[in-house]
Amino acid sequence: MTDRPLRIALAGLGTVGGGVVKALGARARELAVRAGRPLEIVAGSARDRRKPREFPTAFAWSDDPVALAHGDADVVVELIGGEDGPALALVREALKEGKHVVTANKALLARHGTALAVLAEEKNLALKFEAAAAGGIPIVKALRESLIAYGVVAVRGILNGTCNYILTQMEATGRPFADVLKDAQKLGYAEADPTLDVGGGDTAHKLALLAALAFGAAPDLGAMAVQGIAHITPEDIGFAREFGYRIKLLGIAKMTAQGLDQRVQPAMVSAGTPLGDVNGAFNAVVADTGAAGPFFFEGRGAGEAPTAGAVIADLVDIARGNIGPAFGIPARALTALPSAPHGSATSAFYLRFQVLDVPGVLAEIAGRLAEWRVSIESMIQRGRAPGEAVSIVMITHETSHGAVEGALQTIAALDHVMAPPCMIPMEAG
Amino acid sequence: MTDRPLRIALAGLGTVGGGVVKALGARARELAVRAGRPLEIVAGSARDRRKPREFPTAFAWSDDPVALAHGDADVVVELIGGEDGPALALVREALKEGKHVVTANKALLARHGTALAVLAEEKNLALKFEAAAAGGIPIVKALRESLIAYGVVAVRGILNGTCNYILTQMEATGRPFADVLKDAQKLGYAEADPTLDVGGGDTAHKLALLAALAFGAAPDLGAMAVQGIAHITPEDIGFAREFGYRIKLLGIAKMTAQGLDQRVQPAMVSAGTPLGDVNGAFNAVVADTGAAGPFFFEGRGAGEAPTAGAVIADLVDIARGNIGPAFGIPARALTALPSAPHGSATSAFYLRFQVLDVPGVLAEIAGRLAEWRVSIESMIQRGRAPGEAVSIVMITHETSHGAVEGALQTIAALDHVMAPPCMIPMEAG
Repeated sequence: MTDRPLRIALAGLGTVGGGVVKALGARARELAVRAGRPLEIVAGSARDRRKPREFPTAFAWSDDPVALAHGDADVVVELIGGEDGPALALVREALKEGKHVVTANKALLARHGTALAVLAEEKNLALKFEAAAAGGIPIVKALRESLIAYGVVAVRGILNGTCNYILTQMEATGRPFADVLKDAQKLGYAEADPTLDVGGGDTAHKLALLAALAFGAAPDLGAMAVQGIAHITPEDIGFAREFGYRIKLLGIAKMTAQGLDQRVQPAMVSAGTPLGDVNGAFNAVVADTGAAGPFFFEGRGAGEAPTAGAVIADLVDIARGNIGPAFGIPARALTALPSAPHGSATSAFYLRFQVLDVPGVLAEIAGRLAEWRVSIESMIQRGRAPGEAVSIVMITHETSHGAVEGALQTIAALDHVMAPPCMIPMEAG
Repeated sequence: MTDRPLRIALAGLGTVGGGVVKALGARARELAVRAGRPLEIVAGSARDRRKPREFPTAFAWSDDPVALAHGDADVVVELIGGEDGPALALVREALKEGKHVVTANKALLARHGTALAVLAEEKNLALKFEAAAAGGIPIVKALRESLIAYGVVAVRGILNGTCNYILTQMEATGRPFADVLKDAQKLGYAEADPTLDVGGGDTAHKLALLAALAFGAAPDLGAMAVQGIAHITPEDIGFAREFGYRIKLLGIAKMTAQGLDQRVQPAMVSAGTPLGDVNGAFNAVVADTGAAGPFFFEGRGAGEAPTAGAVIADLVDIARGNIGPAFGIPARALTALPSAPHGSATSAFYLRFQVLDVPGVLAEIAGRLAEWRVSIESMIQRGRAPGEAVSIVMITHETSHGAVEGALQTIAALDHVMAPPCMIPMEAG
């Protein structure tokens, strides 16, 4: 143990930044023992210095976060957020100035991760981001350092607590998406502008990082099909339950014969499986390592302590000199892996059609599906309402996403089909 | 990336050792990229050189494993097993000779972990053991390096795949322990001498390591109450199911106001919880970090690939220079934490009494429980068989283990109680 502290500059003093300050204070002695040296916050920056805070800010203050890159810290912690702007400027400057970086910023790394990792490695600096994916779950370290002997063949995760909370509440209460979202906003489980969460964008950012760690693929949002949960209805959730499934927003990255399949979409996951049983605001990841089998990780993915804890674990790593490449392999070795062509992934599907209850409409739908060689395993049409709208629900056999999309496009154009059909793939949990 | 390989000496070429040889061969290029340098097996040792093996042994051979400590390897991998004998001699010699050590040997570390860690740290050498607890699940690294910011307040795990397989089969088939064990032996899920597994000893070894990582407690088997699963009956499993529980052999280490509570025992775990739903030969661990919440890990805990994968992850850590103390804090800082006094732990209990169905027996049992202030939440007595043996099953309110033990001792001595009563605590899953 050396007495030379690891000097930390902290940009962003919101929930997570405050958590870091508090935990480094409250557990200073224990953490110094773990780190082999004290961890000391020497500088900080936030938007408003005068804002009342429930923790001490007895460090050098900078109104300009980017100035922290030029101070005397060993490591800069970036908790500003945003994929560009001051966050990017700070991280870039800090690395240029020879400072290690810890960040919780998934958007930043999903866009600029490769370039920043190259910059870090040129100077043998750490660029660590445990807090950026699945919060407190140590999945970044697990993929980077542990599940490496046999390679990873697939990663599937519930990576957005807001979406999982909303879907869980929809199942529990039977209420529609918009109502549950409003309540979640009141309770602080969803942001005032929920787009990034419920639209799947946040999940996509995190998935890009997990895919980079698992497959050595440069983070590539462009390669990803992204769908949110706003179109999921209580009816879908009810039918899912009836078939023994739950609807979860999954981030999926899977190596296939056609290339790397990366997508974010609501999926039917069997109840009683690890992912199927993840409720509320929790996050979870399955990493399938082929020969060594699947590994499952679950825990809190957001909030003060889980996220601050992940930041602190990265700081202790750096204090101990565990640097290593950001994504587990040299950044220059990250490759643009060929993407699986859109629609080439295969799975069974849940399909829901809203149709006018007139003779022949079922035959028409079945005919279109048959043309695209989508075969039906089971069907539910409940109640009759001649001349009115009813739902027809089908479960298909395994088929390509492209075939289902093709069939649904022709079905959507049929006279008696009254709303865009809903398609949800069944995925392993 | 340097070209200087990490030179590995491998003692023990059974299932796991063979897996290490095969994976280092098959994935040499990928692993060299992850490790920053090639991983090369330069020497090996096993009991019988002439035994046919399905992998090449084109390295320097030594009939005496301990001789590997004196060769030119950078790191010795100990896969011999056994808590003393050649395993201990090799690890001790290797560290004395300045070689890093990777081992899968939980028995060795549970007995000699502190002394060996001291030896390693004196020379700034790694002593890594990811494979020793929960096989492929990276729980050693998670506790050592990730879940550190807020400390761990409790660890609970299903750490022995053989026991979990047997209990799962007992539930699925309704057959008694002895029969299911015999089948498990035929299928290779249980050893010819199953004592260490089904008696709880193997779980105790692993728990000692997890407790050391989580609490900084020197591994201490003497501080641990250990009970196996041989006394669990299909009837217990049936009642558990009726109450919504499953019986799991848990290793539990929990910080309490009275001290560190460490024990291995069958527990009732609610179905629908992470641990309650772990079936078959899988392992799983819940690490409760207080402020940052519980984290759950599940995966294969034994077998060639999961265990070899854990060994290889340790080797890559060493190749990268990630040394650090074996238990996350300096070995000399590991303390003999005060143990919670025997019986001080509290939980609700499942109790089963085999009694002669005569008037008054229930009143007698209830009376004894009341004397020890054990209060009953619910009771089942199914069927009457006047003059014959029947089972009475009770669920208690939360109470101390000591009180239940005291009450059961007096109840066991009652005239109409025909077998030692069975007590199984309910534990969180």
